Amino acid sequence: MHYYIGVDLGGTKIRVALAGVGDQIVAARSFPTGAGRGAAAVLQALQGGINELLAGAGCSRHAVAGIGVCAAGFYDREEDIMVHSPNLPGWDGLPLRRELEELFGLPVIVENDASAAAYGEYRHGAGRGQENLLLLTLGTGIGGGLVLGGKLYGGSRGFAGEIGHIPMLPDGPRCGCGRSGCLEALASGTAIALEGRKLLAAGTSSLLREKKGDAADLGAADVFEAARRGDGAAGRIIEQASFFLGRALAIAANILNPGIIILSGGMAASGDQLFEAVRRHFYASVSPPIAAGLEIAAAQLGADSGILGILALLREYLSTQ
Amino acid sequence: MHYYIGVDLGGTKIRVALAGVGDQIVAARSFPTGAGRGAAAVLQALQGGINELLAGAGCSRHAVAGIGVCAAGFYDREEDIMVHSPNLPGWDGLPLRRELEELFGLPVIVENDASAAAYGEYRHGAGRGQENLLLLTLGTGIGGGLVLGGKLYGGSRGFAGEIGHIPMLPDGPRCGCGRSGCLEALASGTAIALEGRKLLAAGTSSLLREKKGDAADLGAADVFEAARRGDGAAGRIIEQASFFLGRALAIAANILNPGIIILSGGMAASGDQLFEAVRRHFYASVSPPIAAGLEIAAAQLGADSGILGILALLREYLSTQ
Repeated sequence: MHYYIGVDLGGTKIRVALAGVGDQIVAARSFPTGAGRGAAAVLQALQGGINELLAGAGCSRHAVAGIGVCAAGFYDREEDIMVHSPNLPGWDGLPLRRELEELFGLPVIVENDASAAAYGEYRHGAGRGQENLLLLTLGTGIGGGLVLGGKLYGGSRGFAGEIGHIPMLPDGPRCGCGRSGCLEALASGTAIALEGRKLLAAGTSSLLREKKGDAADLGAADVFEAARRGDGAAGRIIEQASFFLGRALAIAANILNPGIIILSGGMAASGDQLFEAVRRHFYASVSPPIAAGLEIAAAQLGADSGILGILALLREYLSTQ
Repeated sequence: MHYYIGVDLGGTKIRVALAGVGDQIVAARSFPTGAGRGAAAVLQALQGGINELLAGAGCSRHAVAGIGVCAAGFYDREEDIMVHSPNLPGWDGLPLRRELEELFGLPVIVENDASAAAYGEYRHGAGRGQENLLLLTLGTGIGGGLVLGGKLYGGSRGFAGEIGHIPMLPDGPRCGCGRSGCLEALASGTAIALEGRKLLAAGTSSLLREKKGDAADLGAADVFEAARRGDGAAGRIIEQASFFLGRALAIAANILNPGIIILSGGMAASGDQLFEAVRRHFYASVSPPIAAGLEIAAAQLGADSGILGILALLREYLSTQ
């Protein structure tokens, strides 16, 4: 048994990867999740995808030691069920790990995607050598993962790191979770795009209007680009989101005293433009002894951080069995 | 060697306790810190206090295995120095542990007081059986301590749990730390007393005026009492502080997914009046899957939680030497 399968189960697409010892990915493929068709259909698609992955790599299923799956959502480690996933409608209560073990006849572990990404960056990326780190995934939503004392930390039920839904602003904008003023409602790609569309509708941003005729097409990247090109109103949207991100990171740092904070995901790819503003607000809010020596860095593993993390966790899990 | 000494080094008083195996306190005494006279004088007073403690208990110094000290402030585990203590002016940079080891010729450990209290409640109090807990000390200031995965968690340098200085309100009231809008500036006993004095000065609270002629004497307990007796303005002060406390705990819970949150210190002694309001705001803000089964409970060890925690940590430290 010398191969391991890593799965990143997203709301839009599923990525499966085959790795040898040492977590080198030797083959990978992506395909649509088809989340709207329900859990059974998604698991069937996953099964098909894994079979194709193995066939393509000329790898027998008997050479595979186990499967590690990371997915967005609250996966309850104690009850071993998906309590709730915003991206996988109808999965609430699903005993995902057991279903996959039955389906494949192999040991399976399941982990939150941001937690797996944090572990991936700890083992192979920006967090190497740091015993305590916080990773934020900045995309359409905001997720968080923690490595504390050199181990993935999930808390009592595996839900730790739920930083996207910390309340940042009383009476703030409505969040997808049903609450108001969550970090995600103030600083995610979705929140930035929403503010950009408001600007476009109000006609106050010439650069945005030039860029997009139709507000519905406008994304966070367009707002970042308009701000970079000098559009003041777009710049204020980015500044406001960075303010809340910087303060949220300061809050988390005061609680955790991490050695490094890692930003990953689509928005983190905006690079200096985002990092400069977030760092400025972070250092203005965090307790000075905690700020000393603490770095806010970009993730290094790109879209593979979750897969690489779940593969490392899988190998460690199997070594204890 | 069958005895252990625990020290709670506060800004106003020092408490020293002698314990046998199992952390039973067999003798204890308290005396003024005299913090204004500087570190050398305080250490001398501590030495005198410990000698009296031993003499009073008829215990030879040679029967003592070590000393555990907890103190408010940022004690840097890596550099082994007190980086900053708000209650012990002039101690910044002091290598407290090494100085005490030299002074007593015994092994010494130093820990933040709220961290020690968290460990005390974990080992002997409200947190027994919980692997992940957050303890808040609510008094003139607000401190925090974390036990994660059954171990005291200090973060990269020992500063974790600094929840009193998380930024809760942009442009909020000035905090003793120099920043604005920290939790401590909004919800500590000091903050509540300050708001009460404003009420008294404005003459809008008849119950507070009846209670205290001189605003300078008015403390948080007076505001709690006036609120309990139906004073609306005092009630709004408590409600506002509870709002920020509840939200801060929701933030910490979203990040840590603890099994229990423990409130200790003078303000927590206000009991139901505080707990009801804090719980209400907590459950309105925390992510529902994290709230499920999570309890906000009162500390059970009173003023001894720090001493009992540092004694347990000391015995564990010595057992590894």
